[in-house]
Amino acid sequence: MTGSSFAAGGVAKGPFLPDVAVVGAGPIGLAIAWRCAVRGLRVAVHDPAPGSGAAHVAAGMLAPVAEAYFGEHELTGLLTASAARWPAFAAELTDAAGADLGYRTDGTLLVGLTADDLAEASRLWGYQQGLGLPVTPLRPSELRDREPALAPRVRGGALAATDHQVDPRRLLPALRIAAERAGVTLVPGAVRRLSDVAADVTVVAAGCGAAALTGLPVRPVKGQVLRLRAPGGGAPGFRHVIRGYADGEHVYLVPRDSGEVVVGATVEERADLVVSAGAVLRLLRAAVDLMPELVEYDLVETLAGRRPGTPDNAPILGPLPGRPDVLAATGHHRHGIVLTPVTADLIADLIVTGRPDPLLAPFTPDRFGPVPAGVTSGRQQPTAEEESWN
Amino acid sequence: MTGSSFAAGGVAKGPFLPDVAVVGAGPIGLAIAWRCAVRGLRVAVHDPAPGSGAAHVAAGMLAPVAEAYFGEHELTGLLTASAARWPAFAAELTDAAGADLGYRTDGTLLVGLTADDLAEASRLWGYQQGLGLPVTPLRPSELRDREPALAPRVRGGALAATDHQVDPRRLLPALRIAAERAGVTLVPGAVRRLSDVAADVTVVAAGCGAAALTGLPVRPVKGQVLRLRAPGGGAPGFRHVIRGYADGEHVYLVPRDSGEVVVGATVEERADLVVSAGAVLRLLRAAVDLMPELVEYDLVETLAGRRPGTPDNAPILGPLPGRPDVLAATGHHRHGIVLTPVTADLIADLIVTGRPDPLLAPFTPDRFGPVPAGVTSGRQQPTAEEESWN
Repeated sequence: MTGSSFAAGGVAKGPFLPDVAVVGAGPIGLAIAWRCAVRGLRVAVHDPAPGSGAAHVAAGMLAPVAEAYFGEHELTGLLTASAARWPAFAAELTDAAGADLGYRTDGTLLVGLTADDLAEASRLWGYQQGLGLPVTPLRPSELRDREPALAPRVRGGALAATDHQVDPRRLLPALRIAAERAGVTLVPGAVRRLSDVAADVTVVAAGCGAAALTGLPVRPVKGQVLRLRAPGGGAPGFRHVIRGYADGEHVYLVPRDSGEVVVGATVEERADLVVSAGAVLRLLRAAVDLMPELVEYDLVETLAGRRPGTPDNAPILGPLPGRPDVLAATGHHRHGIVLTPVTADLIADLIVTGRPDPLLAPFTPDRFGPVPAGVTSGRQQPTAEEESWN
Repeated sequence: MTGSSFAAGGVAKGPFLPDVAVVGAGPIGLAIAWRCAVRGLRVAVHDPAPGSGAAHVAAGMLAPVAEAYFGEHELTGLLTASAARWPAFAAELTDAAGADLGYRTDGTLLVGLTADDLAEASRLWGYQQGLGLPVTPLRPSELRDREPALAPRVRGGALAATDHQVDPRRLLPALRIAAERAGVTLVPGAVRRLSDVAADVTVVAAGCGAAALTGLPVRPVKGQVLRLRAPGGGAPGFRHVIRGYADGEHVYLVPRDSGEVVVGATVEERADLVVSAGAVLRLLRAAVDLMPELVEYDLVETLAGRRPGTPDNAPILGPLPGRPDVLAATGHHRHGIVLTPVTADLIADLIVTGRPDPLLAPFTPDRFGPVPAGVTSGRQQPTAEEESWN
């Protein structure tokens, strides 16, 4: 592949031809770029607005246990493998970037507000325990011993002590600093087709934008998220991540040292970024039902993002069918932050060694069959909708 | 009074010495200035940030009937007198400014969600009817004939056909245009004491800031307000202003042609401008209880403002005790928009004729006794808190 084959819109012409071009400067793209650069590769990351995607909205829960759902056994394995890499990954990144990630290991409390909520939650915990995952049921008194701010009427819960958290709004700039310090070049400007970039290997880490670039079945799944702030500048009145069922509503509360509490999230099969009155009402009501003191918190942000969803809720990791030089690293859906270390390491290893780690086997792009004709040849014209991925 | 008496911080020195200096460029101050200028007076309005006060947050209900509360007979008379002036005032201002005010005469529906809500509301309507005000009780079916989007479980209501609305965010720029076209000068910069301005007559229309300038008992009363928007760019699914009681919560819904719906408002005895999770939850819950389709609306703004409250909830209109050259026009609390025409006309008339209209008698500053020594002499030093009025 040489510079002469580039389309007119190409942005990587000239004397610098990278080994790896990464499309998308979210956490997945930046972490892959960093890991590749550390391994000695020349890397360019293309994004018109780095860090403006789903990760900016995300809460940053690292929760393979609480996110282990029925029928998603292979995904659970990947989540667990990635969560196990998080402590070392966080330490290395903190050191490389000289920045605090807001990485916290206080654990997660799973709670059910009503008897019905508890019954629904318990069914899932039973499944998770059956997988050998560390979920410890707790009586209401034990819950409130750990978090006195929980509503007195919470009927029961469980502790997932190994489900941690990181602050995506600290993670993103840290990854960018680490990548740039390792020699990665950030290239502004939208990538509208694969032929817009030039490198020996192209990694498509463009979240929902991967659909237009690759034809892969990635669809936007809207999520609305609130950010509260403890009054008076102090820390929130609780330390654990709280994941609850409140009168049938699922909600999570993620406390940060800064005083911020992230409240999320809706899961909606639509692509707009509008904040709706109904979603804010549902999230606030469930949050306050579980933790009454939140009525006194400031409401400082309401925001919507688009998760890159896939037909089986699992990410898409590996070469496109018929294009061994184009690797997908997308479709992370609700799991982009927790899956960042394992995605970055396995994709970087694949590029360096040419051999896929067995962990990747269930997540290759070819599990969805051949991609549409024309997509991988670079002749595809994006629609207005597709152009909006960034 | 001559230029030589001005303090060092004075901003009106030089050849132009106005007849009237107005402190505060909210609707009250701007309307007084406009009315004075139309009567041939030279007017300067002082404000570091015109239009940034309570009116920017206000919904703009012109509701002397729905706002006629027990024990506020004299205020009700002033509200009614001002509302009667609104049609001519709106027509004249629309013409003078060449701008649409969003003035609408669709009327107001008063509704009670539960039997308890209806009982509480009915007691007030009975009082209002006893005053001869036009309140017409309606059965649930009659309510829904007028507004099919009301919740089916609304237990009853009433029509206040003469309670109208205007858009304060259109009113403010229109008043500024009309005032400037009539020759009014807007002077930027904060006024920290009365001696900072120079004119034959000074009008203090500084909202909550009047307390620091005059010593009058004006206190901030916080109000939190939401703005929703009908989805798809259309108009809201209802035409009337809705004022409701929903499980003990008072809420109003003000629909605009633009698609906006204003949802308000809390009444809180505090001065901060923080938006709280609890207030947003209460307002959204009550709004959706009364008008379920609002769950589908966008939540486009959450905002808090400070109303200038007084000990008897009535405005303060007229000369300060011992200072016939300083007129107060403040303390309008929840009624600043509806009271704008009568305030502007009566204060302008007082300045021109020297004779107070009998309507002003119940609202003079001296009803609170003498103001503190030092205030009216201009020697007072403002505190940091007081400086924040603008």
